[in-house]
Amino acid sequence: MFVHQIMFAPVITVDEDCSLEDAAKIMLDRNVGGLPVVDERGDLTGIVTESDIVAREKGIPFSIYRFPQMFGEWMPHEHVERIYESARRWAVREIMSHNVVTLTEVDTIETVLEKMLTGGLHRIPVVRGRKPVGIVTRRDLLRLMLEHLPGSSQK
Amino acid sequence: MFVHQIMFAPVITVDEDCSLEDAAKIMLDRNVGGLPVVDERGDLTGIVTESDIVAREKGIPFSIYRFPQMFGEWMPHEHVERIYESARRWAVREIMSHNVVTLTEVDTIETVLEKMLTGGLHRIPVVRGRKPVGIVTRRDLLRLMLEHLPGSSQK
Repeated sequence: MFVHQIMFAPVITVDEDCSLEDAAKIMLDRNVGGLPVVDERGDLTGIVTESDIVAREKGIPFSIYRFPQMFGEWMPHEHVERIYESARRWAVREIMSHNVVTLTEVDTIETVLEKMLTGGLHRIPVVRGRKPVGIVTRRDLLRLMLEHLPGSSQK
Repeated sequence: MFVHQIMFAPVITVDEDCSLEDAAKIMLDRNVGGLPVVDERGDLTGIVTESDIVAREKGIPFSIYRFPQMFGEWMPHEHVERIYESARRWAVREIMSHNVVTLTEVDTIETVLEKMLTGGLHRIPVVRGRKPVGIVTRRDLLRLMLEHLPGSSQK
């Protein structure tokens, strides 16, 4: 089995100058945990993930989302406001991961698993040349595993 | 195949009053991404994960770890110091997730996969009664998959 058979495509990408606020909205709207970042030629230059920019279900305790409650008694309100305001406008290029590990459409599942395990990665973009054409996530692999369990009815 | 065959055991747990700093150190030292939290009887009461408390490789941009650089020009230095100091001393009970999804040792791999996919979970504690006895992670399942690929030499 090959990457092109399990990858999610077409992949949703964002430009390098996309704001963190917009990237977070796209991830929430499309229910994805990470977005490949492309330059003006559409070439892959980085990846930005949910954990980079938004507080999770629980709320990252050190995130600004909890500052008003946790530190409200001594952090001046206008500072909190300025953090929110400033952070929203940052571009994804400021925080994205560079040197992205990638896959090609003809890589095997074994290659996918090895790259994920070695790099501790949760999602890997699939490229044709330097253009992202799909993405494979740990979730995709767990689904594949569930479908191929002995006795499974190919859910 | 059953949970007891793939779970990591014995599981490393922390007490509810363990500090975030100590929990983060344990996760780094033992190279685990999450710790079940137990009360004074050793019963499971929550789970705390790396993303709850530490900046990741990239550094969570909204985390306090980047405040000095990002906002140094306008956030008074003593405020940054107080954030660090205060956050280090929080107890895990303040930020842990409650209502933890659990497995038993005799659950099947299918059950593990379904619970992970349904809940979007990365790790699930295994309990005997209310006592944690192991943990299963997405990484464990990817390894299992790699070992059982057709043509694999049972790495």
